[in-house]
Amino acid sequence: MGAAACLGARARPLSRPNPAVGCVIVRDGIVIARGWTQPGGRPHAEAHALAQLAPGGAAGATVYVTLEPCAHRSERGPACADVLAEVSPARVVIGMGDPDPRTSGKGITRLADAGIEVTVLDDAEARESLAGFLVREEHGRPHVTLKLAMSLDGCIARKDGESRWITSEIARGHVHARRAMHDAILVGGGTWRADAPRLDVRLPGLEERSPERIVMTRGPAPDGVRAIASPKEIHELSDVQYLYVEGGSQAASAFIEADLVDRIEIYRAPILIGDGLRALDDIGLDRLDHAHGRWRMVEQRQLGSDHFAAYQRV
Amino acid sequence: MGAAACLGARARPLSRPNPAVGCVIVRDGIVIARGWTQPGGRPHAEAHALAQLAPGGAAGATVYVTLEPCAHRSERGPACADVLAEVSPARVVIGMGDPDPRTSGKGITRLADAGIEVTVLDDAEARESLAGFLVREEHGRPHVTLKLAMSLDGCIARKDGESRWITSEIARGHVHARRAMHDAILVGGGTWRADAPRLDVRLPGLEERSPERIVMTRGPAPDGVRAIASPKEIHELSDVQYLYVEGGSQAASAFIEADLVDRIEIYRAPILIGDGLRALDDIGLDRLDHAHGRWRMVEQRQLGSDHFAAYQRV
Repeated sequence: MGAAACLGARARPLSRPNPAVGCVIVRDGIVIARGWTQPGGRPHAEAHALAQLAPGGAAGATVYVTLEPCAHRSERGPACADVLAEVSPARVVIGMGDPDPRTSGKGITRLADAGIEVTVLDDAEARESLAGFLVREEHGRPHVTLKLAMSLDGCIARKDGESRWITSEIARGHVHARRAMHDAILVGGGTWRADAPRLDVRLPGLEERSPERIVMTRGPAPDGVRAIASPKEIHELSDVQYLYVEGGSQAASAFIEADLVDRIEIYRAPILIGDGLRALDDIGLDRLDHAHGRWRMVEQRQLGSDHFAAYQRV
Repeated sequence: MGAAACLGARARPLSRPNPAVGCVIVRDGIVIARGWTQPGGRPHAEAHALAQLAPGGAAGATVYVTLEPCAHRSERGPACADVLAEVSPARVVIGMGDPDPRTSGKGITRLADAGIEVTVLDDAEARESLAGFLVREEHGRPHVTLKLAMSLDGCIARKDGESRWITSEIARGHVHARRAMHDAILVGGGTWRADAPRLDVRLPGLEERSPERIVMTRGPAPDGVRAIASPKEIHELSDVQYLYVEGGSQAASAFIEADLVDRIEIYRAPILIGDGLRALDDIGLDRLDHAHGRWRMVEQRQLGSDHFAAYQRV
């Protein structure tokens, strides 16, 4: 299932509006096919994997898929549960059930009715690889990652605004790779006006993966850029599964205060700044104990001289 | 030499005013004796190790010692180079030469003159285990560790001063263990007046290891507490090898600005505070590029939910 989740992550973010599903087909302990949701959402991961096999090639095999196979036929293709039932695998292992009411449970039933052994897990890796889809299903908004690049003492710039550079080139390259995993990038109006940041992906081969840019401002939207006035308006970004909030501190604080951040990614350079601009302003914290138990470190690594750590909402 | 350095660290800080030296004696690949500088500075590490052997037991063995054996006889005991020459090891491996002019090079010469093979390294672990002694030899002041306990966004308290607790009990226990490794703890006058912190070691078995307390204040010293008026006055703390600066932010900033911090130890809790009290104030940083290249992460670990990282001056 871990391998299927990794394949699913390949589909992110281009699978939108569909979930980024991964699929591995195994026979006699050997992987015979691998698939993931294709750009635009079709083919689905199961169809993508099955297309790698000769007719009858899946008979008796085990199919691992991160999300319950869909049970609804659309104009764009048949339901995956039907397609799977037809090729007669011995077993289908499902990372998690599909919360979408058009499928929820029906995909499982259809496979079981076809005589296939079905195992439904609640797998953490599968769930994590589907985060953008799941947050939208549950909360009707994009999955939000807040990125902060700061000094050891929590500053994002000197007090005069000088911020080039806090982090190293390696860390900045990592940020570009992370941008490519998101549908849209948001910055606050102040950062937009001060820096007019390009917010694009400048990695060889990934130039086409630059996300849409969104500015949070109460004023008019800059030319060619979408604008929202407050964090809660992300509920209206119906075409965005993964939103990357890049600052500045007012935008970051507004998202934290509105409790609309699912993941925080911190790049920390081994420098001290002192009385610089801080990463966050007021986030409406009224008691210290209310700050605890909300975030859990889920990933960390060294990026050159900088330290990267990711925290997930508990 | 790594093992000898670890043994040397056991002597810290009680060996003062002597260096915290470690010694391992090996014969045929087997450790036959281990020693470290005893409290108050005597016996030295070599004598402590040799005392574990029968007469003649060191003949033909290899002696590893972190610092060049002393060449000066004092009223408290003979010179280690003479003692070692007398017991006739085949070889002495030395972590680093002694900068003390009473020994520097003379200890090595005396061993070589006695027909012993002498190897002098410049070993990083040996050097690190002798940091307090070396900083005093080179700069005439204690080795200074700055401890900061903060939120992810660099705050040490809420804006009303509430700071209990930022970090977890495990991290606070680690702080107590670190206190026991220092001769003195310093806090700023503001922190002293606000919290009247005990600054002691409250770990079972280490209660006797609570360091001396020092307050940095321009006002009169509190009863029974030593006071200094500014960071540069640490040059007058001639009996202190290891100083632990625990804050608050004014004291921390003053030490950073004076460039009198050798090591920074950061405890970082997975919480966000926002517009709280910051870890550092003005540190006199005039350009961002002047902040780079000064600190290097040398240690990190997870302490419960908190992250610990240590940075050394480059």
